[in-house]
Amino acid sequence: MDLSELLAPIASDLERVEARIRGDLESEYPVLARLVEHVSRFRGKRLRPALLLLSASACGGVRDLHYGLAAVLELIHTATLVHDDVLDEATLRRNVESLHVRWGNEMSVLFGDYLFARAFRVAATLGDQRSIDLLAAASESLCLGEILQTSERWNAALSEAQYLEIIEKKTAVLFGAACRLGAEGAGATPERAAAFERFGLGFGLAFQIVDDYVDLAGDEAAAGKSLGSDLLKGKLTLPLIRLLAAVPAERRAAVTELFTAGERRQERLAEIRRLLAELGIRDIAVARAAEFAARAQAALAPLPPAPALDLLRRLAALVPTLGGA
Amino acid sequence: MDLSELLAPIASDLERVEARIRGDLESEYPVLARLVEHVSRFRGKRLRPALLLLSASACGGVRDLHYGLAAVLELIHTATLVHDDVLDEATLRRNVESLHVRWGNEMSVLFGDYLFARAFRVAATLGDQRSIDLLAAASESLCLGEILQTSERWNAALSEAQYLEIIEKKTAVLFGAACRLGAEGAGATPERAAAFERFGLGFGLAFQIVDDYVDLAGDEAAAGKSLGSDLLKGKLTLPLIRLLAAVPAERRAAVTELFTAGERRQERLAEIRRLLAELGIRDIAVARAAEFAARAQAALAPLPPAPALDLLRRLAALVPTLGGA
Repeated sequence: MDLSELLAPIASDLERVEARIRGDLESEYPVLARLVEHVSRFRGKRLRPALLLLSASACGGVRDLHYGLAAVLELIHTATLVHDDVLDEATLRRNVESLHVRWGNEMSVLFGDYLFARAFRVAATLGDQRSIDLLAAASESLCLGEILQTSERWNAALSEAQYLEIIEKKTAVLFGAACRLGAEGAGATPERAAAFERFGLGFGLAFQIVDDYVDLAGDEAAAGKSLGSDLLKGKLTLPLIRLLAAVPAERRAAVTELFTAGERRQERLAEIRRLLAELGIRDIAVARAAEFAARAQAALAPLPPAPALDLLRRLAALVPTLGGA
Repeated sequence: MDLSELLAPIASDLERVEARIRGDLESEYPVLARLVEHVSRFRGKRLRPALLLLSASACGGVRDLHYGLAAVLELIHTATLVHDDVLDEATLRRNVESLHVRWGNEMSVLFGDYLFARAFRVAATLGDQRSIDLLAAASESLCLGEILQTSERWNAALSEAQYLEIIEKKTAVLFGAACRLGAEGAGATPERAAAFERFGLGFGLAFQIVDDYVDLAGDEAAAGKSLGSDLLKGKLTLPLIRLLAAVPAERRAAVTELFTAGERRQERLAEIRRLLAELGIRDIAVARAAEFAARAQAALAPLPPAPALDLLRRLAALVPTLGGA
């Protein structure tokens, strides 16, 4: 069963979120309307809204507030995609050319800023102080995670613990916030809301580990986006950290050079892919993602059975497989 | 009387805002602490906090909330400075090298995002829903203003009305929000709060007109920041619009080429400066700024006398002179 089949039971709820996003981004200014049209073609898996809606559903039901919060989450996420693509010099996103390819870096930075401001404006209109707190904290965390990752570029000594701290901040916290917002907005107790947040954190860690593996070893046509940017930008991710740990000591210097040298990227990428296969790093990455997915599922274990909980658990189980065969 | 003398009566209040900003930006992460230390050296005139505090003072007194709001305004402003300097390729800011010169464009974009997220996080902790609304709307407006300006680059047919719409959105709205936040937070009536907002809008328009004149004709050493970026980036501002209107029709094509051609920037800047002097554009820009400063003062005219009102009026009167002799 693939992702869209799994999400079929909430397809109409996700459509309502889409409509909400479209309405929130309507603009009388032609230039903004064109920028919005461009990013609307990036429409992705909408995982964050899905987790929020399912968490709400498992805690008493989806309310009007939830559609607005889901839209805000997706606006924040889209803002980060626009900035990421500029910074990563990525040219493809969901099989559409990146915003900066068509509009230039300046407009893309400004439009990312606009989306972020718009997200907070929409959040403010929802009138729920607690949600604004959570959204602002999650946004700050993801910026901090990106800053920490950027400051550790080209550092071949980056530990797995440091890597996990970075991806928790830059990715998992927003997934955790999605689940917490869904649960709290449906009136969950603090203990229950915390359990949903833990689910989102585990889910997000698993998701980012898979995403990082795909960036190194995936197929651009299948992924629909530019890959290899971590290597280009000197970002050490789990597959490289594990690769370094797995090679015999006498080859470590040569392997380190593969991802700290600045040139011949295609050749280096090919050699790294060969080594990832030789040393079984794909299995290691998938196993690590599966561990975090299991941790996510465990967070929900104490809760009484519910269809939405079952869906959340199955979504988590799917994440380690998203990297493709 | 210069700006710092005029602001002397609220110097200790402004110090409290400084302390608040320092506290809000404290971080356990060394890389963030170093980035914060860098931007703290940009410390500017703190005009937005000053307008907020004086508006509060004129409407019943400065409360704890106001220091927090002033800090948030300054964080938002600092975020835009960091991004502006990247986009404008400016290398100097308050006589200190721009953030991107030392840290690179990627870190600067991310740190601008962080400051923006941090601003909203601080705003959320203030627990005043209405303020978050105003701050988010002002932030959205300033991003929109920047986008409109960027989309009209190299357009020699830009009208003064379009220019004024752009600078109202990108600059004046935040000054207007500063005054409204000060007034509303002190319990002003809606009519009174609207009058303060109008003051801020007029003040902001006057301020940006002067700033745009300085960017073309000012002295970098005196301004303490990189100048000429509007010309470099094809941004038509009031002095150029008025210059085009003032030259005889037969010279218009040649003058237009001065700011639409991509090369020989120093030569073109020198020629434009000569024309600005020849055609008396400085006086025109100063007069236009003075009109908006007078409009700002007029907004406060119906209010009963108060020392803070007097200071606001004198600040507005000072703006047209800030461009230097």
